[in-house]
Amino acid sequence: MIKYFTEEASVEAVNGRMAEDTDPRLREVMASLVKHIHAFIKETRISQQEWETAVRFLTDTGRLCTPERQEFILLSDTLGVSMLVDAINNRRQMGATENTVLGPFYVPGAPRRAMGDRITLDGKGESCVFEGTVVDLEGQAIEGAIIDVWSDNAEGFYDVQQPDIQPKWNNRGSFVTGADGGYSFIGIKPVSYPIPDDGPVGQMLKHLGRHPFRPAHMHYIVSANGFQKVVTHTFVGDDRYLSSDAVFGVKATLVAPFERLSGEEAEWRSRFDFVLSPM
Amino acid sequence: MIKYFTEEASVEAVNGRMAEDTDPRLREVMASLVKHIHAFIKETRISQQEWETAVRFLTDTGRLCTPERQEFILLSDTLGVSMLVDAINNRRQMGATENTVLGPFYVPGAPRRAMGDRITLDGKGESCVFEGTVVDLEGQAIEGAIIDVWSDNAEGFYDVQQPDIQPKWNNRGSFVTGADGGYSFIGIKPVSYPIPDDGPVGQMLKHLGRHPFRPAHMHYIVSANGFQKVVTHTFVGDDRYLSSDAVFGVKATLVAPFERLSGEEAEWRSRFDFVLSPM
Repeated sequence: MIKYFTEEASVEAVNGRMAEDTDPRLREVMASLVKHIHAFIKETRISQQEWETAVRFLTDTGRLCTPERQEFILLSDTLGVSMLVDAINNRRQMGATENTVLGPFYVPGAPRRAMGDRITLDGKGESCVFEGTVVDLEGQAIEGAIIDVWSDNAEGFYDVQQPDIQPKWNNRGSFVTGADGGYSFIGIKPVSYPIPDDGPVGQMLKHLGRHPFRPAHMHYIVSANGFQKVVTHTFVGDDRYLSSDAVFGVKATLVAPFERLSGEEAEWRSRFDFVLSPM
Repeated sequence: MIKYFTEEASVEAVNGRMAEDTDPRLREVMASLVKHIHAFIKETRISQQEWETAVRFLTDTGRLCTPERQEFILLSDTLGVSMLVDAINNRRQMGATENTVLGPFYVPGAPRRAMGDRITLDGKGESCVFEGTVVDLEGQAIEGAIIDVWSDNAEGFYDVQQPDIQPKWNNRGSFVTGADGGYSFIGIKPVSYPIPDDGPVGQMLKHLGRHPFRPAHMHYIVSANGFQKVVTHTFVGDDRYLSSDAVFGVKATLVAPFERLSGEEAEWRSRFDFVLSPM
């Protein structure tokens, strides 16, 4: 007796087709995917017309993708999927600095700068001293830690979004800690900005009554021999979008103070210490 | 106290962002979608690398789509999603002819033909008489039912796939039943064929150890005033792919007998009666 596809046994029909010698991890992932997609369709009783809308949405999302614009990553970000994958893969011990999403604007190879240097090259924005230390879970300074930083400029754009307008490596730099584990550099107080919202994902956000903004943040990758790499941001504590980041990247422990200075060195100062977990 | 995104409360974080005045159906569908996608990711603990593979797969799938090639529909078909949506939206009373997927090769407006006419215009394939009646649930003949039929040719291609080789409307036609509810036409015994498998979906099937073939079938749309439209196929009963249709379209009640004839009219005969449910 052949067992054909039925509404009731739809998951078994599809998953039963996988060959015996399918890669075990692929088998596990696909079986779970089919189970959850079918459960979603049964729970919502998706209509034929809704299914057509979904196919059109996915097609439009894919067709918009270019090397410069990744609409599927935006979709993943705005549905909390990117943050969830990040969270699952970067569980840290209590007290260690938490991860958040890398984002699409990281560029490897930023110029190495001396502590205290300025990374802002376009002269725009409110200048800010970023400083702190890189320590282990016992609070001991880590020497030789590499700190890679990047932020948007005062108009909310990263240099790679405006290659004809901004100087190359504007608001980017790489620093190495000395024996005291300390770091400091002068950038700008970052500003909030919208993720690209002129495509299908922007349409989706509009239909859901959601804005496309990310709260202002400074990106960091902090790495050191023998320690887990931390990919994270620090967030500007008084940003209006702090509780509604379009990509769900904010964690309470990553909200940093920004203190106004009275003149000379810079207009603001933000202190943040990075605590790394051992490998 | 702001509630930020956490691994544990990831679904609530995302769904809690929908505005109060979001369309209720959109809210319902999105809330279920987010819940099931997050459950899938938590259950499988998708790695960062697997997530990147998924983004690349979806992007490649979207970028392949053209008006002639819909790779996302293929993906939906091969994961049983298309059949599931069809099943949910076309539950029929016991005894009524069941639906199956429309498929991508339907063309509206096929020429109206007289009962008994030949729809095969390229002279290829094993000729077959298709005949039967269109009746209601009580077995009463339905007059004026429209029967739209289409199949591949002897090489496994629909006319629209080979516009330069096959005559227009090859193996397609439309018929209207008389007072007896009967229909008959001469086509070919259809042949099995692979769905397009040179894209990401074909790659997926290979990795799962699945073949891309559909068992041989004749497509039908049967409609009549006051009755639910039936979009379906009849399947050639001895096809080798009957139990492993790449798109899960086979239902036991749609497998039709194909009887060999001894000459004159045609080489084969297949009888199938269509039973329509009232609106």
